[in-house]
Amino acid sequence: MRKQEQARYSGYRMPGIRMNEPMLEDVDSVYHEVQLVDLSPYHLFDKAHLVMLTEEGLIPREHGVAMLEALGEMEAEGFEELRRQVGGTSHSGEQYLIRRLGEEVGGHIHLGRSSGDLEAVRRRVQQRDWLIALMKGINNLRSALLVTATEHLHTVMPGYTHSQHAQPVTLGFQYLAWVCALTRDFERAAAAYGRVNVSPAGAAIMTGSNFALNRHRTAELMGFDGVLSNTFDAILNEEVALDSLLALTTVQLNLSKWAADLNFWYTSEAGFIDIPDRYCGTSSIMMQKKNPDLLEFIRGAVGETLGGFVTSVTVQKSASGDSTMDIFYMDRVLFRSFATAVNHLENFTGFISAVQVKAERMEVFAGRHWAQGTDVAGALVSDKGLPWRTAHQIVGILVRLAIERGIDPRDVTPELLDEAAREYMDEPVGLSAETLRKALDPVEFVRARTLFGGPAPEESERRIADYQDELVRDKETVSRLQANLARASDKLQAAIDSLLERSAGATHPN
Amino acid sequence: MRKQEQARYSGYRMPGIRMNEPMLEDVDSVYHEVQLVDLSPYHLFDKAHLVMLTEEGLIPREHGVAMLEALGEMEAEGFEELRRQVGGTSHSGEQYLIRRLGEEVGGHIHLGRSSGDLEAVRRRVQQRDWLIALMKGINNLRSALLVTATEHLHTVMPGYTHSQHAQPVTLGFQYLAWVCALTRDFERAAAAYGRVNVSPAGAAIMTGSNFALNRHRTAELMGFDGVLSNTFDAILNEEVALDSLLALTTVQLNLSKWAADLNFWYTSEAGFIDIPDRYCGTSSIMMQKKNPDLLEFIRGAVGETLGGFVTSVTVQKSASGDSTMDIFYMDRVLFRSFATAVNHLENFTGFISAVQVKAERMEVFAGRHWAQGTDVAGALVSDKGLPWRTAHQIVGILVRLAIERGIDPRDVTPELLDEAAREYMDEPVGLSAETLRKALDPVEFVRARTLFGGPAPEESERRIADYQDELVRDKETVSRLQANLARASDKLQAAIDSLLERSAGATHPN
Amino acid sequence: MRKQEQARYSGYRMPGIRMNEPMLEDVDSVYHEVQLVDLSPYHLFDKAHLVMLTEEGLIPREHGVAMLEALGEMEAEGFEELRRQVGGTSHSGEQYLIRRLGEEVGGHIHLGRSSGDLEAVRRRVQQRDWLIALMKGINNLRSALLVTATEHLHTVMPGYTHSQHAQPVTLGFQYLAWVCALTRDFERAAAAYGRVNVSPAGAAIMTGSNFALNRHRTAELMGFDGVLSNTFDAILNEEVALDSLLALTTVQLNLSKWAADLNFWYTSEAGFIDIPDRYCGTSSIMMQKKNPDLLEFIRGAVGETLGGFVTSVTVQKSASGDSTMDIFYMDRVLFRSFATAVNHLENFTGFISAVQVKAERMEVFAGRHWAQGTDVAGALVSDKGLPWRTAHQIVGILVRLAIERGIDPRDVTPELLDEAAREYMDEPVGLSAETLRKALDPVEFVRARTLFGGPAPEESERRIADYQDELVRDKETVSRLQANLARASDKLQAAIDSLLERSAGATHPN
Amino acid sequence: MRKQEQARYSGYRMPGIRMNEPMLEDVDSVYHEVQLVDLSPYHLFDKAHLVMLTEEGLIPREHGVAMLEALGEMEAEGFEELRRQVGGTSHSGEQYLIRRLGEEVGGHIHLGRSSGDLEAVRRRVQQRDWLIALMKGINNLRSALLVTATEHLHTVMPGYTHSQHAQPVTLGFQYLAWVCALTRDFERAAAAYGRVNVSPAGAAIMTGSNFALNRHRTAELMGFDGVLSNTFDAILNEEVALDSLLALTTVQLNLSKWAADLNFWYTSEAGFIDIPDRYCGTSSIMMQKKNPDLLEFIRGAVGETLGGFVTSVTVQKSASGDSTMDIFYMDRVLFRSFATAVNHLENFTGFISAVQVKAERMEVFAGRHWAQGTDVAGALVSDKGLPWRTAHQIVGILVRLAIERGIDPRDVTPELLDEAAREYMDEPVGLSAETLRKALDPVEFVRARTLFGGPAPEESERRIADYQDELVRDKETVSRLQANLARASDKLQAAIDSLLERSAGATHPN
Repeated sequence: MRKQEQARYSGYRMPGIRMNEPMLEDVDSVYHEVQLVDLSPYHLFDKAHLVMLTEEGLIPREHGVAMLEALGEMEAEGFEELRRQVGGTSHSGEQYLIRRLGEEVGGHIHLGRSSGDLEAVRRRVQQRDWLIALMKGINNLRSALLVTATEHLHTVMPGYTHSQHAQPVTLGFQYLAWVCALTRDFERAAAAYGRVNVSPAGAAIMTGSNFALNRHRTAELMGFDGVLSNTFDAILNEEVALDSLLALTTVQLNLSKWAADLNFWYTSEAGFIDIPDRYCGTSSIMMQKKNPDLLEFIRGAVGETLGGFVTSVTVQKSASGDSTMDIFYMDRVLFRSFATAVNHLENFTGFISAVQVKAERMEVFAGRHWAQGTDVAGALVSDKGLPWRTAHQIVGILVRLAIERGIDPRDVTPELLDEAAREYMDEPVGLSAETLRKALDPVEFVRARTLFGGPAPEESERRIADYQDELVRDKETVSRLQANLARASDKLQAAIDSLLERSAGATHPN
Repeated sequence: MRKQEQARYSGYRMPGIRMNEPMLEDVDSVYHEVQLVDLSPYHLFDKAHLVMLTEEGLIPREHGVAMLEALGEMEAEGFEELRRQVGGTSHSGEQYLIRRLGEEVGGHIHLGRSSGDLEAVRRRVQQRDWLIALMKGINNLRSALLVTATEHLHTVMPGYTHSQHAQPVTLGFQYLAWVCALTRDFERAAAAYGRVNVSPAGAAIMTGSNFALNRHRTAELMGFDGVLSNTFDAILNEEVALDSLLALTTVQLNLSKWAADLNFWYTSEAGFIDIPDRYCGTSSIMMQKKNPDLLEFIRGAVGETLGGFVTSVTVQKSASGDSTMDIFYMDRVLFRSFATAVNHLENFTGFISAVQVKAERMEVFAGRHWAQGTDVAGALVSDKGLPWRTAHQIVGILVRLAIERGIDPRDVTPELLDEAAREYMDEPVGLSAETLRKALDPVEFVRARTLFGGPAPEESERRIADYQDELVRDKETVSRLQANLARASDKLQAAIDSLLERSAGATHPN
Repeated sequence: MRKQEQARYSGYRMPGIRMNEPMLEDVDSVYHEVQLVDLSPYHLFDKAHLVMLTEEGLIPREHGVAMLEALGEMEAEGFEELRRQVGGTSHSGEQYLIRRLGEEVGGHIHLGRSSGDLEAVRRRVQQRDWLIALMKGINNLRSALLVTATEHLHTVMPGYTHSQHAQPVTLGFQYLAWVCALTRDFERAAAAYGRVNVSPAGAAIMTGSNFALNRHRTAELMGFDGVLSNTFDAILNEEVALDSLLALTTVQLNLSKWAADLNFWYTSEAGFIDIPDRYCGTSSIMMQKKNPDLLEFIRGAVGETLGGFVTSVTVQKSASGDSTMDIFYMDRVLFRSFATAVNHLENFTGFISAVQVKAERMEVFAGRHWAQGTDVAGALVSDKGLPWRTAHQIVGILVRLAIERGIDPRDVTPELLDEAAREYMDEPVGLSAETLRKALDPVEFVRARTLFGGPAPEESERRIADYQDELVRDKETVSRLQANLARASDKLQAAIDSLLERSAGATHPN
Repeated sequence: MRKQEQARYSGYRMPGIRMNEPMLEDVDSVYHEVQLVDLSPYHLFDKAHLVMLTEEGLIPREHGVAMLEALGEMEAEGFEELRRQVGGTSHSGEQYLIRRLGEEVGGHIHLGRSSGDLEAVRRRVQQRDWLIALMKGINNLRSALLVTATEHLHTVMPGYTHSQHAQPVTLGFQYLAWVCALTRDFERAAAAYGRVNVSPAGAAIMTGSNFALNRHRTAELMGFDGVLSNTFDAILNEEVALDSLLALTTVQLNLSKWAADLNFWYTSEAGFIDIPDRYCGTSSIMMQKKNPDLLEFIRGAVGETLGGFVTSVTVQKSASGDSTMDIFYMDRVLFRSFATAVNHLENFTGFISAVQVKAERMEVFAGRHWAQGTDVAGALVSDKGLPWRTAHQIVGILVRLAIERGIDPRDVTPELLDEAAREYMDEPVGLSAETLRKALDPVEFVRARTLFGGPAPEESERRIADYQDELVRDKETVSRLQANLARASDKLQAAIDSLLERSAGATHPN
């Protein structure tokens, strides 16, 4: 390549080499779009690969050093911008180096590498960064929920199944259920991290290289926890992105459910909560509106992520060496799904701490629609020794009679209960008014459920202690992962420094 | 609102009105992103709505005229940019007018309207524009295929089922099969257009208005073919986007299949076609590569569109008045899917005309792997009066024997056939060598299939004549739809001109 | 094949013909499962094909007649059962005929046919039958909704956006919105029918036949409205099933939304409706429960159908001749989705007529949460000449003040409104108490919306008249389609009778 | 309930209790269908719950014992059948016991339990059983692949990207890539098992019970590894099924890719493998066909599973207490997906061992289409000290010239290379003929890739040793899980025996 051509060099696919025509525009827009989202993984790989090539003596030392020096200066000037200027994307490092140092020097960087491992490294580095952000977002929400749950261990409200009042619960107890789900989501994200943070570098396009690349060294310098042990698998199997997408899907599904819960609680009909204005929109026509916009964006996002999951599986459905460019459709949806989830977790964390709870109204509703019915039957079992099913059926009749006659649960009398009993088994049950009253009290209902995992405040407190421990453990996991990456980053810088110094020493011996 | 506030006015959701806090950032990013993709539908609706309000006397005539005048000047200066400057998106018209003319004038534009119909109009106008582009893209590809098919009515090649050679076909005949599928795709797009191009304007958010809006007039000025006849349905049912998405999905599924066909034909193993360099990438490591990049982007896109379909259904799964903001996730995937499909249709149209066909190699393969077997059995039926099944089984044995013995189909003899016949029914069949030879010729195979819709060149020619007629008809449909829109645009301009003139006349009576 | 083998004949894939081993079990379970769902399309095709072969003289007349006679007797004895006995599925006709009449006779049936068109015909006949059932189900629900809507044109209730009270509507008006959606669903089903009911018969596997099959005759005898004009397209493009699946998806999406609406109205918090016991389950523990089971099964089914859509697209993503067996996964989900939708439409039709509406409670809620706010601003425009935006903002302040002070909408005074006005524009508006009262009345709100498509009872009545006309038209469409099928069935029987008679005449000439 | 009614008792939802009408038919078909698939989890839970209730003294000991005795006899007679006879499904245990022992005894079983934990236990027990089958299926395939890979470490063939020849690989090396993917699939299945095998029992419907249930005891008796620590979460969060579905999706996606690989290798064009007849179908018209049916069923199944994933997420998209019955649509697709995957793994395992490899043809193809190009550039780097990019571009020109002139890679001369070099850099490179020949040899190509994870046979052997170790470890995991379940089963039987004996002792004291 002539010098003047080198100054404009923007890639190896030039007419006159393998092909005669330049590439048509608009053919590969998704490919370039995806690569431009984050250029730092390519930059990282460029540096680590150069260090390894130089250390192993696979390229002339002085060229290796010159390239590392140039990349350092590139960083000082802003590497993203410079990379874009040279026609950007995955090969922007080589393009920059050839333009700046000539092909004789810069032409060495790509030895033993391919677009294949450039993309595979980029995809994994991006994923691990996002997974850390996701894990932090999950942990922050767990934190917020544990605090808020503690405040609401005595906030009694209806629990629902089939959208109908089922049993009294506490708000805090429900928040703890959310914590449990988030703990699983954390596990999924951590498992995805484990599968993602393994290095494909040096696998080139499928067979690695006949040059003696030190794959473990490159991996170490980039902060990978291991090296993929089959170079074909390293490049042509991309199904680990589905581990990320599973974590994203369950996070979004859970957030979607909770947003729907809060949305219902915020309806005028329920009126269980109020929401700070900053999360709300209004209407250009209906000025009364205070719409829970945040909740809606959160509720809908599972649709986006699920669509992304479908896209990601579908584009991979082909023979092993087929879906080479198709895979970029996956990248696009994958990283947008990450961004949406991390944003929503943060917003939801603020939101959950700011929600205004109308505890009194909640408790009133908990007692109004027979949510407490289970314990009336329970009382017949405990006090009168009836089999559960007999007790259950008698109270079933009682409820029907009360509703037919417009009697509120709290106004039910032993006499009405006896009427129901007689209808079922031809004799009264004779429960005392006091026992009946207590059985009808939703607060008593909750308080009595001290069994493992139950909603009684004292039991919830025991569980909170456990969940705090788990959260501490999981936060430490994230810290450890981040420390690993920081250590690798230091190691890479040290290796570069050492090469530059030794090189400086070599050329200036005294 | 004070004058100085009006100069900075960027929307009705200000602290101190319904709410006390401003909106948190990052809550509604998808909402704004979607609106900024195309601001022209809002602009169109602003003008048509103002004309209608003014004509019907629902707002003071001089204010209506002043606003229309201002919008005209806005256009001259570049309305997209100006709309972005005032805080953009759906209400940018009102924001601009209030900033420029004060609330006393600009505050009139939104009478009887809501974000609801602003978005519904925007969504439908965008869709109809894209549907026209889609229909044109489909028709152009049909055109190209009909031309190319005509050139290849005698290009005999293997047809496949189960990825195995099934029967000889011609390349042109296959292209005609693609035309048939595209004709259905056109019908789907046209049906979607019919369901999409009905006006929700004037439905406001669900009940229209108690002001006497003339919904038919607004619709007419915007080029809608009708008016949605229930204002609740007009805003809260968004399932018509699925009609667009079906058309997009089948277009992409079809393109995906054909890209996979071409991809296979382009493999080194098949070697049936070559591809111009401009559609191809190469590799940074494997310099020999001439990769069919375009085909891969096309093949994968059905995954993107299918994911978009899933997203669109999932976000709508909720009660009627629930998924108000969630729906914007649908917009995002819908319009990206349109852009991808229209781009791919155009590229594929160029591609299909440019593919270099290796007709000789195709024909050789058509005869090498027993694709012609069907007609050997057929000859036993015609010539020897055997029942089909008997003939079929005998030739089945023949094929097995030939393969076991490494005999090429063209080298099969009447004796081998007799051996097979004896194995099945204890007697030979005695087919003549000449009949057998003819039955084994893939060119004869194709030529004999003159039945309706068959691959014989003469039959394909008859079908091409029909398909040309259908294409003419469908191109006229698109022209008619575009003419309707152009007429509406003229009508709107004429109405504006008339109001401005009359107004000018009114204020300058001499 | 020997006589004794013929008596046990169960298909052409016998060891010793093309292959040496029998098929492994469990390889093709989905293939057989799908075929066994409905054997009648194969039976129909067997008869029509035999008539055509005999009429055209492509097989010996006496054999054609013998086979038709045998099929007639098969019907008398119960053809499904007999087909299952001979090893069932698509080729059961041939298997039965060879067992009964010997290969010399029964071996003739398959001339010019393939599993390809057997399956394609089966798939299309099944779809058209289900599409008719679907269209009838849609129409019956439209009928029921029109009746019920008429009863509830004055039943005022809150309409929702963002799950919040938006504006007053009537229940009847909402039901009319549902009718509009169902009308589109009908169009989709009818369009699918149009694309489905075209005959692939005679296309065999992709090229038809060199025997002079009369494809139009076979099509006519099976009730198809046309003949697919490219034999490759007829067999290898299966995307028309997506037209059916779109109709199913939108039907289920719509039903899902309405089930969610009703579900919300049935909550204890809303309490707008009650539901007959027969649609409800209870709980084995919470005896008070009366769960709206039907609504839940209906609400969830869109997930099943959407999954089916995804399956159907995904299995087709491959080269044209690749997805031959994979397509059976589509059949399985397609026909289950049909069955679910038809069942749900029928149940929902009964349900909607049986729902007990609590009109008084609905109306109370419509006035309690500021749904009527829009018209207070409207009054300021009409009465006081304020620009809409000014009026809207003033009432926004009014609502905030009222909520902060715990004032019910109905108790708002002109003074409070003036306070809000002063806050916005430093002067009062002076609306009369009477005008304010009227503006705050949700019944007035609805009554005033007489614009096209609005909720005013008189306008709803006008629309109902239109919708009745559309329904009559669409019911006639279904009747016409059914009549076409009946006529074809008669024609087929007549053709068989004529062949048998002529044959009888021929053999018994006097 | 009267005695005679007890004899026919088929559940607590009787008219006259909470409701007046019986349930309509056809409302809950999916609910019953799902429950009938496997009744053993209900049976297991019935026994464990009864043991716990009796041990804890929550029900009268003699009734507990009588019920356990009856369940034992039920087993002896065939519990599935008996459960079906009493109206089956989840409550069939209670129904049987009440019919047999009367409500006074049998009415005790349901104390502290609900349909909620019955279904949650059933879903988890079914999943864990299927997950074990899945893990075994995965491990068996790994075993088979390791054996077969070992046989093919020297079977050189083309590797593909973009469907084009990329680089030479070995068949064995590719199989090892498959093993790597399966190892991840195993991890996913194992992770799913870990999340699934935690007990919801005793959570009843969301709050557990005010009776002092010993949840840990019940869990232990059923073989669960832990107890879900929040009773709301235990019942109302069902997202763990997505862990199973992820494992199923990646298994099927991987199988799908490999089936597509094999399918391509089996085409007439590639002709790299042959397939035993038992996996193949033929055609009713094209007797020559030997279709790889198994591969197609395997390839398509990812579409079914992905559809199931979509269904499962979509039905869960609602508020926490909403999707109670909708969830059964998930069950249906989940367990069918399991059955399909386990069946396919088994068939594919047999298949992979039986495939007939045409090694010679593979190797020829590996050298014919420039797959070895990478190493020609490599030789220029090693031998001539050129920068990689320079070498790469020169060989790019070489390939173009060779193709334009119809020169086979093996016939390329140093002169042609020099011509290419001159075109790029105005001077020749002077590579020796011997070096060039070696660089063009695909066998050398593979042999030279001894880097970690590369395709050189010696490196593959090192990796196989590792993979064997991993497989042993994973097989032990499965054995351990199965042993845990067996131990739990023994413990349950021992507890029952102990109760029955003590009871026998108690009633017959001397």
